[in-house]
Amino acid sequence: MPDTTMPPALAFMLAARRCELQGLESLAVTCELVTCISRLVHALQKERGYGNIYLGGQAPHYLQQLDAHTGEAQAVEQQVRACFERIDPSNSGADRARLFNRIAYVLHALDDLPGLRRRVREHQIDGKTSTAAFTRLIGGLLAVVFEAADTAADPSITRALVAMFNFMQGKELAGQERAAGVAGFSAGRFTGELIDSLQHLSEAQVRCFDTFLEFSDLQMRKRWQALQGSDTLAQIARLRGIAEHTAHSGLQVEPALCEVWFELNTQRIDTMKEVENHLADDLLERCQRCIKQAHADLENHRTLLKRLADLDGQSGQAVLFSVQGSSLDSPPQDGLGQQVARSVLDLLHEQNHRLQGVSDELREARQTLDERKLIEQAKKRLMEEGQLSEEEAYSRLRKRAMERGMRLVDLAQALLKDEARAPARSRPTLRP
Amino acid sequence: MPDTTMPPALAFMLAARRCELQGLESLAVTCELVTCISRLVHALQKERGYGNIYLGGQAPHYLQQLDAHTGEAQAVEQQVRACFERIDPSNSGADRARLFNRIAYVLHALDDLPGLRRRVREHQIDGKTSTAAFTRLIGGLLAVVFEAADTAADPSITRALVAMFNFMQGKELAGQERAAGVAGFSAGRFTGELIDSLQHLSEAQVRCFDTFLEFSDLQMRKRWQALQGSDTLAQIARLRGIAEHTAHSGLQVEPALCEVWFELNTQRIDTMKEVENHLADDLLERCQRCIKQAHADLENHRTLLKRLADLDGQSGQAVLFSVQGSSLDSPPQDGLGQQVARSVLDLLHEQNHRLQGVSDELREARQTLDERKLIEQAKKRLMEEGQLSEEEAYSRLRKRAMERGMRLVDLAQALLKDEARAPARSRPTLRP
Repeated sequence: MPDTTMPPALAFMLAARRCELQGLESLAVTCELVTCISRLVHALQKERGYGNIYLGGQAPHYLQQLDAHTGEAQAVEQQVRACFERIDPSNSGADRARLFNRIAYVLHALDDLPGLRRRVREHQIDGKTSTAAFTRLIGGLLAVVFEAADTAADPSITRALVAMFNFMQGKELAGQERAAGVAGFSAGRFTGELIDSLQHLSEAQVRCFDTFLEFSDLQMRKRWQALQGSDTLAQIARLRGIAEHTAHSGLQVEPALCEVWFELNTQRIDTMKEVENHLADDLLERCQRCIKQAHADLENHRTLLKRLADLDGQSGQAVLFSVQGSSLDSPPQDGLGQQVARSVLDLLHEQNHRLQGVSDELREARQTLDERKLIEQAKKRLMEEGQLSEEEAYSRLRKRAMERGMRLVDLAQALLKDEARAPARSRPTLRP
Repeated sequence: MPDTTMPPALAFMLAARRCELQGLESLAVTCELVTCISRLVHALQKERGYGNIYLGGQAPHYLQQLDAHTGEAQAVEQQVRACFERIDPSNSGADRARLFNRIAYVLHALDDLPGLRRRVREHQIDGKTSTAAFTRLIGGLLAVVFEAADTAADPSITRALVAMFNFMQGKELAGQERAAGVAGFSAGRFTGELIDSLQHLSEAQVRCFDTFLEFSDLQMRKRWQALQGSDTLAQIARLRGIAEHTAHSGLQVEPALCEVWFELNTQRIDTMKEVENHLADDLLERCQRCIKQAHADLENHRTLLKRLADLDGQSGQAVLFSVQGSSLDSPPQDGLGQQVARSVLDLLHEQNHRLQGVSDELREARQTLDERKLIEQAKKRLMEEGQLSEEEAYSRLRKRAMERGMRLVDLAQALLKDEARAPARSRPTLRP
């Protein structure tokens, strides 16, 4: 039992409050982890970018910068690992299993980094392979953020995490766009496939930032909108125009534009990181505020319930303390005892109403994550079935939804319905 | 960190498994609680029924049976309290707050029972008031079962709990139907309101048992269907016809029918309890099976990962143990080390796929609970706004949905949309 000095009913009421507080405290660790991951992703994006351009051979003088970014990524990696170590997995329920599995994936991928870095420097792999390896790791880190958002138990923090995840995802797509452009400019030509890829990455960013805006407050929206009119964006658009033009005409592009493209996109991504830093600060602050409030509520509640228990004792009634309640001759319920009982009932109803409200808000905030998951799953399924690229699968999905006049998510759900009924608990097999 | 003898990636993989196991173990306690609650609800339904007919004054000889059922309820109450004490609220996340709050409500209501029982025996309250008090307590107990179903982390157990909850709810509505009939027969007449009430209770039962059937296996469905052709049901239907006829014609009913009605309905409810016992047994067995399987999976997984870690050590590679990963000169990844890394990756992907499947199944199983919650909330809101009875609110809701060609749940959701956006975290106030 939670509190032996209190009647069981009140002790469970307090336990309910304590659950909420504990949920917030474990959430605070998760939010710090998310903040650290935001830094690591940024460092890895830089390392991927500079490695990519270094491997492109257009700018060997980037090695020094590459080394600097590798050093930065290594330092932040240690911080992320330290965060992982602070997570206590022994006191956790089943809902954290997915988070832990995502963390395991990240740790596994991080262990591959030293080898990858060596191969980049020895020119043993090309830019495409190196980019893909970094992109997988960053995808794993973003999946941790996704799970953090999906398992957060406070609606306002869930919303902040949904905003953060979508922003990070959008920024990562911007990083991939940078890499795709570098590939084209450094090769001196853009294939149709590469142009499709640029187009897809650009559209996907819009969706991410739209969701970010939907889940952000006015101040954050203003910060974002301030970036939208910048000269950098106009110059990037011009370069994208050149790329598209050369793809259609079959002309070569000027390889010197590679560095310009890279620097402009790097500027863009760096200003994104500034907004992301504000998001991270806001997240941590929100967490601290919620915990402080929950502590105060718990104390307030404890005092209140103790006072009620005392009042009840004074009144000579046994309303709250008649725990065994098996005799038929307890005094009638009226006077002070009855009032106390009614106050407890009010508190219970209020707490229940509040908790129900929290659940409803949570469900609403998580809906966008659910929808995202469904669309991703449907996309993957189409990719597997039809041997399609991600872009092809997505545009096929979108085309079908438009043809049938359905929302994308409803089509995805319909597509997955059969698969969802298949048995999910298959035992893992080991390829030795 | 979870396991210091393992590389962090593998330790987190194991931690994910352990989370699932812990979730199941805490679920086992909850399922035992649900089974105990099923017994307590049955005993309280009997006590309510016999108290009601005793207060109706038609059958003073029922006092002895009432006392017997009170004794039974008191004994089972001790078992339920013992279950509550076995719940450890200190290691729980925020998702259990609602469960604990429901338990607090039940404990509070149980403390009122001795006084209620005394007032029944001293004829200080009428049947309606006594029935209402028992019904509130039973409603509180059912709310505990609902929360248990809504927070269970295993899809097959969630489905079993959804079936159990709906069955218990249907049986409780049958108990309320019995009480409503007793009220009419013992008064010698049925008002239009009472007939509406009987009608509503009967329809609501159909919905509950339909959901129960949807979430049950063939064997359980057969058990239920075997009851549907019984003579008892035909006789009850005949009595209901008499009640309706007298309501329309304004005639008196024969008060002697009260006992017949009561006995027939009691028979019906008792046979329901037999099905419910099977459901409870099935639930506990399913829980034990899942836990055993999860234990075996965890052990299997642990062995597998240890073997991988050993293989990796033998191969002289540092794939899994290169935790610090900061040097650029680790050996190339190929041969055995690379194979091990790929096996770990396979395991991670499989685990991720499985966990994702579990989440999807859970979401699907909980959907019916979500829908129920929405409809209940919309009903309550209409009751408050329009000063309506539960039946009136429900039929108004159904009428509107039919008029607009909407599903009931979609209408409920639309109705609640404004309310859901209102601030949920209001501080509790105390009426002294």
